[in-house]
Amino acid sequence: MSESSHLPLATGPRLRQSPFFEATRRHGCKAYTVYNHMLLPLYYESTEADFWRLVNDVTLWDVAAQRQVEITGPDAARFTQLLTPRNLAGCVPGQCKYVLITAEDGGIINDPVLLKLREDHFWLSLSDSSVLLWAKGIASRAGMKVHVQEPDVSPLQVQGPKSVEVMAALFGDWARELKYFRFREIDHDGMPLVVSRTGWSGERGYEVFLRDGSFGDRLWDQIMEAGRAHGIGPAGPSTIRRIEAGMLSYGADMTLEENPFEIGLGWLVDLDQPADFIGKAALKDIAANGVSRRLVGLEIEGEPLSPNPAFWPIHDGEGETVGRLSSCVWSPRLKKNIALGIVTLGHEGLGTRLEVDAGGERRSAVVAEVPFYDPKKEIVRGR
Amino acid sequence: MSESSHLPLATGPRLRQSPFFEATRRHGCKAYTVYNHMLLPLYYESTEADFWRLVNDVTLWDVAAQRQVEITGPDAARFTQLLTPRNLAGCVPGQCKYVLITAEDGGIINDPVLLKLREDHFWLSLSDSSVLLWAKGIASRAGMKVHVQEPDVSPLQVQGPKSVEVMAALFGDWARELKYFRFREIDHDGMPLVVSRTGWSGERGYEVFLRDGSFGDRLWDQIMEAGRAHGIGPAGPSTIRRIEAGMLSYGADMTLEENPFEIGLGWLVDLDQPADFIGKAALKDIAANGVSRRLVGLEIEGEPLSPNPAFWPIHDGEGETVGRLSSCVWSPRLKKNIALGIVTLGHEGLGTRLEVDAGGERRSAVVAEVPFYDPKKEIVRGR
Repeated sequence: MSESSHLPLATGPRLRQSPFFEATRRHGCKAYTVYNHMLLPLYYESTEADFWRLVNDVTLWDVAAQRQVEITGPDAARFTQLLTPRNLAGCVPGQCKYVLITAEDGGIINDPVLLKLREDHFWLSLSDSSVLLWAKGIASRAGMKVHVQEPDVSPLQVQGPKSVEVMAALFGDWARELKYFRFREIDHDGMPLVVSRTGWSGERGYEVFLRDGSFGDRLWDQIMEAGRAHGIGPAGPSTIRRIEAGMLSYGADMTLEENPFEIGLGWLVDLDQPADFIGKAALKDIAANGVSRRLVGLEIEGEPLSPNPAFWPIHDGEGETVGRLSSCVWSPRLKKNIALGIVTLGHEGLGTRLEVDAGGERRSAVVAEVPFYDPKKEIVRGR
Repeated sequence: MSESSHLPLATGPRLRQSPFFEATRRHGCKAYTVYNHMLLPLYYESTEADFWRLVNDVTLWDVAAQRQVEITGPDAARFTQLLTPRNLAGCVPGQCKYVLITAEDGGIINDPVLLKLREDHFWLSLSDSSVLLWAKGIASRAGMKVHVQEPDVSPLQVQGPKSVEVMAALFGDWARELKYFRFREIDHDGMPLVVSRTGWSGERGYEVFLRDGSFGDRLWDQIMEAGRAHGIGPAGPSTIRRIEAGMLSYGADMTLEENPFEIGLGWLVDLDQPADFIGKAALKDIAANGVSRRLVGLEIEGEPLSPNPAFWPIHDGEGETVGRLSSCVWSPRLKKNIALGIVTLGHEGLGTRLEVDAGGERRSAVVAEVPFYDPKKEIVRGR
């Protein structure tokens, strides 16, 4: 991301600072975004240097802006199920689930990671939209015994192949055995924490949810200290790595205007479960009738592009607009511009040739397989 | 606002650009904030120069980030009343009302300006929180025939004593007669508009709601052209002027944690109306039992302070924390630091001496009358 694409952001109490904000300033964070009314740090040395550290070593991210919605009370389980099309019947305490939150018309409100703390205690670890107000609104009319609030919980992510060494050094060997999408509640040096094997990087990683913001500096410094021998550095969510992995960003790659089937997340929708959930009738209709557009991967030809500051139109060979590009980045590993976008049906086939209006510059593009890069196969599948 | 308090903001489609964004770039906007997931331009020449232009001449603001929630359908009136403690019984089409949106516990969700377009058609012109999701959540369980959506509507504000001349020159003499908090729907040069006599400046002013974003540049340029003879310039919401006027900013001076009575907006709550609204029971309790803290004005001694980047603690003479400062600015007209904050009961009396922790620097402060400046009286009442 080039400096030229940054705007001066005036700060103020309406844009909340995370408990780790001072640490991110000390470490020289070079760009922020605003996420859930909070400052979210994005990169430090450079987006490319931070990327290589993420894929080769280990990085520490302040993602306190991933706010939690906490659902408690006698009807918490039934209420939480009402919010999501994913079937939560088999979910046990200590387990995480990637879920969608859908509106009555099947549009996507958020794609949080759900953490089940107890049978009547859930967190939704949010992407950037106010599920707090959505859930409070429903709760006010649902006639269920449920309490919805935003607790004092601020996550960090420790991401990269060496994250396991850092976690084991700091918290003990149990961190090596922690299964994917499982978590553990611990008290560490007086700090109440939840440690999960989750993250938004496409690499091995952990999240550390701090349950008392007053310990922000202490937790940050302890992780940095434990990671020093493993080459840890500060970073933020890597646009390069997450597009390589085909991971979607809420507010760009999916919004209230898209439904799960359009963006390839139909596997998160269980229409056959006995439980009711908001959006079930609409999603049944969509499943029966099919969708009219689909999310695809795109490779864009030519010189490295800066990330798109806005949606970019996608055209077919005749210059007709057939979709919009939502995320674009130059991958220094693949040496390609890789992107995600939504196109109308008939243009989604692998190899389809399209054009992108990249901020006024017309570029050729081709529909490509997602993920663009799969470390498990050690091969580049992007073509 | 000093440049030093700005952070580099990485842009992207998740932070939406308004239809006037390109115009604000052309005019050299020097700082933005993020408001309802949209870039909101704040100032151009300097906050002080823009302030003097606002109070002496006329200014044009891109406030497209004031998104609208549109409520339509057979039950629209009953549903809209359900959302707000203000009694809407006497509200007629063509009228605006400043309203609060409250939660079940009486906490404030938003403080929009309501526009009643027809008996079954309302807009809520929002401050910075997702009333769209709040209202959609309620609608999904309320059993009413109502449709809630965000329409393609982007407001500009034309604020300052000469705004009336600009509006009359552009739209005709009817703009001179338009009453405070009334609006008119017009088609101007092919552009569908709503023009209201409202604004967030404490000065005479208008809002122009563009109902088709594709005309952004045309509308902006026409207002600039019509205002040239009157010294118009681009600006944004003026922190100086609005604190002088004692106008509150949602997310800072009031949040979900405050109720209307604590922040001096009890006059917007009608507990005796026959209609039900969300928060009525809780607000009745609060009205009966009283509040434990209150919003006050503060004058802070010493050299000019930069606006507070976060909440600042307020202390009493013994160093005990008794509240928090939410908005602070140096007024070049009053030659004083003026501020708003909330203090526990017993510290709200005019003249009470307090201390503010202004980013690590302890400053003396005194509780002062709000508004700090009232142009109708042509006197400074701040002491």
